[in-house]
Amino acid sequence: MNTKCPSRDFVYQDWILTETKFNPEQLHSRGTIFTIGNGYLGTRGSLEEGHARGLPATFIHGVYDDVPVVYTELANCPDWLPVIIAVNGDRFRMDQGEILQYERKLDVSQGLLSRSLRWRSPSGNIIDIHFERFASLADQHILGQRCQITSSDSDCLIEIQASINGYAENQGFNHWEGIDQGKTDQGIWLQSRTRGTQIEIGMAAKMTISGVEASLQVSIVPGYPTISASFLATAQQTITIEKLVTVFTSRERNQPVTAAKEKLAQIPDYRTLLTANKQAWDKVWQKSDIHIEGDITAAFAVRYNLFQLLITAPSHDDKVSIPAKTLSGFGYRGHIFWDTEIFILPFFTFTQPAIARNLLSYRYHTINGARRKATHYGFKGAMYPWESADTGDEVTPRWALPDDYYGEDVRIWCRDREIHNSADIAYATWQYWQASGDDEWMRDYGAEIILDTAIFWSSRVEYNSQGDRYEIRGVIGADEYHEFVHNNTFTNRMVQWHLEKALKVYGWLRHTFPERATELEDKLQLTTEVEIHWQDIIEKIWILYDPSTGLIEQFEGFFQLQDINLADYEPRQRSMQAVLGIEGANQHQVLKQPDVLMLLYLMRPSAEFPYNEKVLATNWDYYAPRTDISYGSSLGPAIQGILASDLGQKATAYERFMQALMVDLEDRRGNTNDGIHGASAGGIWQAVILGFGGIQLTEQGPIANPHIPPTWTRLKFQLHWRGQWYGFDLSGEEAGGQGEKHNFFPTPHSSLPDSPNIQGFIFDLDGVLTDTAEYHYLGWQKLADEENIPFTREANEALRGVSRRESLMLIIGDRPYSEAQIQEMMERKNRYYVELIENITAKDLLPGAIALLDELRQTGMKIGIGSASKNAHTVIKRLGIADKVDAIADGYSVQKPKPAPDLFLYAAQQLDLKPQQCVVVEDAAAGIEAALAGGMWTVGLGPVERVGAAHVVFPSLAGVTWADLRAKLNEAAKKS
Amino acid sequence: MNTKCPSRDFVYQDWILTETKFNPEQLHSRGTIFTIGNGYLGTRGSLEEGHARGLPATFIHGVYDDVPVVYTELANCPDWLPVIIAVNGDRFRMDQGEILQYERKLDVSQGLLSRSLRWRSPSGNIIDIHFERFASLADQHILGQRCQITSSDSDCLIEIQASINGYAENQGFNHWEGIDQGKTDQGIWLQSRTRGTQIEIGMAAKMTISGVEASLQVSIVPGYPTISASFLATAQQTITIEKLVTVFTSRERNQPVTAAKEKLAQIPDYRTLLTANKQAWDKVWQKSDIHIEGDITAAFAVRYNLFQLLITAPSHDDKVSIPAKTLSGFGYRGHIFWDTEIFILPFFTFTQPAIARNLLSYRYHTINGARRKATHYGFKGAMYPWESADTGDEVTPRWALPDDYYGEDVRIWCRDREIHNSADIAYATWQYWQASGDDEWMRDYGAEIILDTAIFWSSRVEYNSQGDRYEIRGVIGADEYHEFVHNNTFTNRMVQWHLEKALKVYGWLRHTFPERATELEDKLQLTTEVEIHWQDIIEKIWILYDPSTGLIEQFEGFFQLQDINLADYEPRQRSMQAVLGIEGANQHQVLKQPDVLMLLYLMRPSAEFPYNEKVLATNWDYYAPRTDISYGSSLGPAIQGILASDLGQKATAYERFMQALMVDLEDRRGNTNDGIHGASAGGIWQAVILGFGGIQLTEQGPIANPHIPPTWTRLKFQLHWRGQWYGFDLSGEEAGGQGEKHNFFPTPHSSLPDSPNIQGFIFDLDGVLTDTAEYHYLGWQKLADEENIPFTREANEALRGVSRRESLMLIIGDRPYSEAQIQEMMERKNRYYVELIENITAKDLLPGAIALLDELRQTGMKIGIGSASKNAHTVIKRLGIADKVDAIADGYSVQKPKPAPDLFLYAAQQLDLKPQQCVVVEDAAAGIEAALAGGMWTVGLGPVERVGAAHVVFPSLAGVTWADLRAKLNEAAKKS
Repeated sequence: MNTKCPSRDFVYQDWILTETKFNPEQLHSRGTIFTIGNGYLGTRGSLEEGHARGLPATFIHGVYDDVPVVYTELANCPDWLPVIIAVNGDRFRMDQGEILQYERKLDVSQGLLSRSLRWRSPSGNIIDIHFERFASLADQHILGQRCQITSSDSDCLIEIQASINGYAENQGFNHWEGIDQGKTDQGIWLQSRTRGTQIEIGMAAKMTISGVEASLQVSIVPGYPTISASFLATAQQTITIEKLVTVFTSRERNQPVTAAKEKLAQIPDYRTLLTANKQAWDKVWQKSDIHIEGDITAAFAVRYNLFQLLITAPSHDDKVSIPAKTLSGFGYRGHIFWDTEIFILPFFTFTQPAIARNLLSYRYHTINGARRKATHYGFKGAMYPWESADTGDEVTPRWALPDDYYGEDVRIWCRDREIHNSADIAYATWQYWQASGDDEWMRDYGAEIILDTAIFWSSRVEYNSQGDRYEIRGVIGADEYHEFVHNNTFTNRMVQWHLEKALKVYGWLRHTFPERATELEDKLQLTTEVEIHWQDIIEKIWILYDPSTGLIEQFEGFFQLQDINLADYEPRQRSMQAVLGIEGANQHQVLKQPDVLMLLYLMRPSAEFPYNEKVLATNWDYYAPRTDISYGSSLGPAIQGILASDLGQKATAYERFMQALMVDLEDRRGNTNDGIHGASAGGIWQAVILGFGGIQLTEQGPIANPHIPPTWTRLKFQLHWRGQWYGFDLSGEEAGGQGEKHNFFPTPHSSLPDSPNIQGFIFDLDGVLTDTAEYHYLGWQKLADEENIPFTREANEALRGVSRRESLMLIIGDRPYSEAQIQEMMERKNRYYVELIENITAKDLLPGAIALLDELRQTGMKIGIGSASKNAHTVIKRLGIADKVDAIADGYSVQKPKPAPDLFLYAAQQLDLKPQQCVVVEDAAAGIEAALAGGMWTVGLGPVERVGAAHVVFPSLAGVTWADLRAKLNEAAKKS
Repeated sequence: MNTKCPSRDFVYQDWILTETKFNPEQLHSRGTIFTIGNGYLGTRGSLEEGHARGLPATFIHGVYDDVPVVYTELANCPDWLPVIIAVNGDRFRMDQGEILQYERKLDVSQGLLSRSLRWRSPSGNIIDIHFERFASLADQHILGQRCQITSSDSDCLIEIQASINGYAENQGFNHWEGIDQGKTDQGIWLQSRTRGTQIEIGMAAKMTISGVEASLQVSIVPGYPTISASFLATAQQTITIEKLVTVFTSRERNQPVTAAKEKLAQIPDYRTLLTANKQAWDKVWQKSDIHIEGDITAAFAVRYNLFQLLITAPSHDDKVSIPAKTLSGFGYRGHIFWDTEIFILPFFTFTQPAIARNLLSYRYHTINGARRKATHYGFKGAMYPWESADTGDEVTPRWALPDDYYGEDVRIWCRDREIHNSADIAYATWQYWQASGDDEWMRDYGAEIILDTAIFWSSRVEYNSQGDRYEIRGVIGADEYHEFVHNNTFTNRMVQWHLEKALKVYGWLRHTFPERATELEDKLQLTTEVEIHWQDIIEKIWILYDPSTGLIEQFEGFFQLQDINLADYEPRQRSMQAVLGIEGANQHQVLKQPDVLMLLYLMRPSAEFPYNEKVLATNWDYYAPRTDISYGSSLGPAIQGILASDLGQKATAYERFMQALMVDLEDRRGNTNDGIHGASAGGIWQAVILGFGGIQLTEQGPIANPHIPPTWTRLKFQLHWRGQWYGFDLSGEEAGGQGEKHNFFPTPHSSLPDSPNIQGFIFDLDGVLTDTAEYHYLGWQKLADEENIPFTREANEALRGVSRRESLMLIIGDRPYSEAQIQEMMERKNRYYVELIENITAKDLLPGAIALLDELRQTGMKIGIGSASKNAHTVIKRLGIADKVDAIADGYSVQKPKPAPDLFLYAAQQLDLKPQQCVVVEDAAAGIEAALAGGMWTVGLGPVERVGAAHVVFPSLAGVTWADLRAKLNEAAKKS
């Protein structure tokens, strides 16, 4: 294949990429490749000392700002990297003096980027310089840098300048207005704000020098706060400079600069932070690693691709998603495409489900944008944008503007016509649900996505009465070379599939969570007519499938287009659209990426229509040779590789796989400078696990049917499926079978020290210290009495876990009440409940609660409450434990509910404790998850199925002592 | 009228504007108002210490860079202003501590901006700070700043940081890539380059501190080189900080940063530079001032408007022009409109004709862009862009992009339809020629503009055979509220007028400069058919004029549009287009600006059709009430004021005048923050001189027929008309009459010391040291001999000053030669000429040349040659004077020919002399002008009519001695 940029200067080890030569021509592609990050931010591999053509970039999830034409983009944030070194007055730069030795390493096992070099200055001094940097995965707001300098031949005067550069730019545009900056005891800080979206950022930095006496000065250059020092370095003496940076934005904190300054004042030294970072990475890789033996390039490159996804995975934020170019480059402006749901998501669904949930929740939180888009185009429901950013509104640019004065503006039609992504998002939502069994999320988030996009489709399809069929006209399918087509099979079948699943989800919801079903019926105007319409569309939508041959036509009239032999155009270095022109490509049977084959790939897991082996073979033979797999979309190769593997075409499978695998490490498409090909990286995981690993997901769990490349001697990985981990350790002999169940849990999600230093406890209220089920009963009883309906404590047992509406229905039976009366009764019961909990007393404390509280207070523990209830203060007072409680975080304290860690973090803050000094006691899965996300110790009360993720599990608080608890926590800490 | 922003905090004196209060709400409008400049650059009135919402901006003529949507813009250049002061650690800022006293002054007599304040720091220290700045008019590459600090109550630690800020931005976009920066003995320097156009800038700065001992440190913060110092200031002691900055771009110098560093090393102190600047301003105001008594607001505000034009007037560059918002703001991105030719130019034509010529020459140098535009739209000739920048290509944006995701893009049609400016430019070209009598410029530049735009018109008009008339359909006229109209009278009549003048210019050229006429005939394909076509268009173009009433219809169908009573919409704060919408305005009889009245105004000077008093009155009554004079275009009020004055409507005249006069000082339209309304400022000059002064230009010179506002007791000004100055000193009693002739000449154009310190001479070659006429004769003779045509030395006399083609025609008489043969003979003769000058010897030296050269060398003078000839080296060698010459600047040395100073500056540089140490000896007007522009002493050889601008004039070098010359130069120096 294309080896335009062979990476002769790259050496691959299991976890380490080493660049042996600095080539300024590759400055920007290498800037992408050496990106590091921690799921909060990504920082490109720019040079600490700067470079004439350098484009340092740090992107923080969700920090978008306005920009003309493309509406919004991820703002390049102030640069935390600058460290300038001058040796006897000569400023160190890669393009001055002489580089005598050079090595740059990326250690993906811990996200550590380093550079070692020996430099002869223009004046002839020779010094060794070693740089390191990492973005802490243990605490996303901490960034670390180290620089070690050794003068190898003579004493010399060294000047150091460590800065935060507020003049970061997006292709020349600086999104930031400086608000303020200054000095602290510790160093410097900078406060800036995006011009349009008014997002504030606060950064603080300090520098320490060891190995020599040096005093630090701080300079107040506007927008470029700088700490500097100069000292005499004696020969052969190593001097270490450590620069620690903290960063917050107003997305997380009201006073980000205060938060940055405070954190900076508290953090330990570089070495300690790096250790915590490494531990955090160990836990991530424990789940997400793929271990390959026999092919060192693949072994490293697969990890490299997964690393690039992991560093951009928003583990703490469910209002952002992964941009097409991750957080590693300016390409596509940080916009989010179907790439995330279809290509990237499976990796997370099966190895980091909490992150998968965050990514999908982003679509839930932006659904109002999708609704505005639907309204704008005259449709109903939610029409997801082709390119999405912070609001979910459509941000695909309308125009590709010409470079010259009289050139034509080219209209970009994806915003209007490439509509399949609303079905793609529904597909991903369904798949996540299938894999995770996360019914709560499906109830609260997923169902609304699937149903409101289904409503969009029912307004978008057109009924053709002549053919008695539904059609979807005027679209762009997955293949973007054809810009205005009718009845694209990919789109039509995905819509049909979507509506099938929408009916199932709706049925499930009505059955399992009827109150939520009612809520969505009201909100989305879901009626029986809508259901019938969906069913009708499913039955009658036009699918261009020929049952006699199994051949699928990509869209109406595709087979009438001019045919093409791609071999006639080889060799080439451009896409077929560039060769033929936009109109030319439209008129030929040439594909930018798989379309029919993409559909078959998506229908493959459950072998749904029209997928079967014969259909795959037939359509592969037709479409694969007509697909511009080298210079079309980077979304193609991994998927085609998997299908080739299914078809036993081993050479092609491996070739396509390598094409995807090395797309960035070898800059195969010449655009790695724009950022990592995120979809391709996601495709790699699918290619290894679903292609070579041949994983099939069955009711009994995942089963491997491997087709491992000949050189691979071992392929080892693990998958999370419906609450269980399955480990696979496959040899090259293609022996498959079911995976071995693992129990990774309990594992803390974030890094906690090996020996806990507990200073306080945070208790959930309902279900932990007290139980309000009784008051619900009393509320119903009062209502039933007033209505003269028989009701008993026994009958009440049937209402546990049943929604308010459904409970009422059970009570009233077939008595004839109007909807208005039902509504009134529901409200009345709730009013009674709220009044009743005013009557709570100490007797409502659950067994063991008061004893443990008292024991803990005697040992000096601080006690906090972390409850989502808005009545928490009242309840605590009534329970008579107000004097045992130091702080209360309740339903008014934070915005984001559990499983976000906010509530517990707030409580810890109120207690003046660090998260790792706190134990959270919870009875709900979301509560345990929230505490783990907050970096706290966790005690789960209840069945392991529900709270098994906690460090320690008890059935209830009855009989629990501090000694007992402490022992179990220490044990858990050693395991993790 | 609108007094939305009454300037209660402004005090006006004759030459000085004083702001008595700092209001951060007015930060940006005041930033415009306090702009200073020197014709090379403009710097907005930003604060030295910065401001949170500050937008410091410096624009340099011609420094455009690429930008999306609007194609190109003036790049905001690195900011030379930053001076940061910290008092006992408190950084001085207007928004911190307390401002106890405040005053900001702009002295327009010398372009000096100052700010004096007393500040109480947050820690309680009280200090007085006085800032000053100027951009030197004496040397455009020098910028000066001074800051004086006095601690009023106690000793305190002062820290000072003086910087160049390389992060200047255009609405967030930084056009500059840093190349390098560093320290010098003197201070700091910065080298940057625009991203797209690759224009390099070099800036250097130094700082001196007097009044205290303080050592300076230089910091190497990337892109922000900084000199800093800290010192203890004792109470009541004044410390003076002077910061001098030099700036060059690659538009003037190959190595701009070297030039900046070298100049910085040479320049004297602040006081000396400020004095030179003042002297340069004195000379400018001597010609351009308008002196008003009896109305202090008008007295200052008129000067203020002229000042804003003068600081943006490119006196040294004929490849740039004045943008609509001058060099004072970001509005319209530094693009150039008809505003310059129609509104601004007359001020320069009549008071600074050399600048007027530069401005018009810009259109000549960008005519190829106008040709590309014509070609793009399918027309012939030159179609000037509606918005123009560096190349003359059309840079009007196509789209006004929406702010929101689903808003509509609004198509901007001016680029396609507002075509009248090609006629406007021709109009201005003609007027300049009429006023200046500058035949050479008309021959070399103006004629090509007028003729090639006339060719455009003949391809743009449409012949309507039914009506036997020419029409111009689908245009926007001067009134931009109507976006697609047919036969706009303004456009049609301007085209007719243009073609009338094109025929005259063509006839004049054929008669006076037949060689040039031939050249243009060939180049532009000017044929008899074209002339006939022009004549036909003139006769038959449709003008919607009703001779019975004198009423003119603005365009076809205007009178059928819905009528409007603007009073019904009062009071309002928006334009009528904003009130009615784009379509609504299109459908009403409402004008954004004068259209028919604008035409009458342009036809007024020579009372050409359809102008006469009755027509004016009729159309005034119809159109003035329908014109949105308050919130429509700012181009309207001054022009309507003049016409109202003509009509004896004194109150209206004064009201309109004040509306234009105070548009920026009182921010009447709320958009002064975007930059000075340049066209309105130009209109002010026209309103005072042509309106109130009632100046009419007659064959006998300008005549005043004043209508002076009642409060004005005196109106004094001067005009340049056909080589003569005319002074007017009018009282309020409306006594008019002819102006008094002045003789400002000889005045050096640039500032030269009173006692010349001459170190060298630069001689033009042909006509000064030698004469090549003889070789032309010999060339013709050889040709004639070969062709057997009788030819004699006597016959040759008739060929002096006659073009090559015309000479050949005289020689061959009526002999029948084909065009091909004629071409061949012309080439042959030229070849002979080039061969013949190889035979030049010392006897070809002109009388007196060798004697003067020898005498000068004996006195130690350096001798240079400055000749446009590409054979200069050969000729000098042949003349035997090579050993008497230290440096030769020839046709290869520089790009810009005389009258640009480049060639002589290059020669001076080669001689290692400063311009003011050089005497240039020249026989051509353009050469004298070039030398004056370069700041050199000048000796003219020949008639005063030709070289009268020189400091000293001789008939020839015969008998000229150094003693003689020195005496005359000293005398001239005292006069100037």
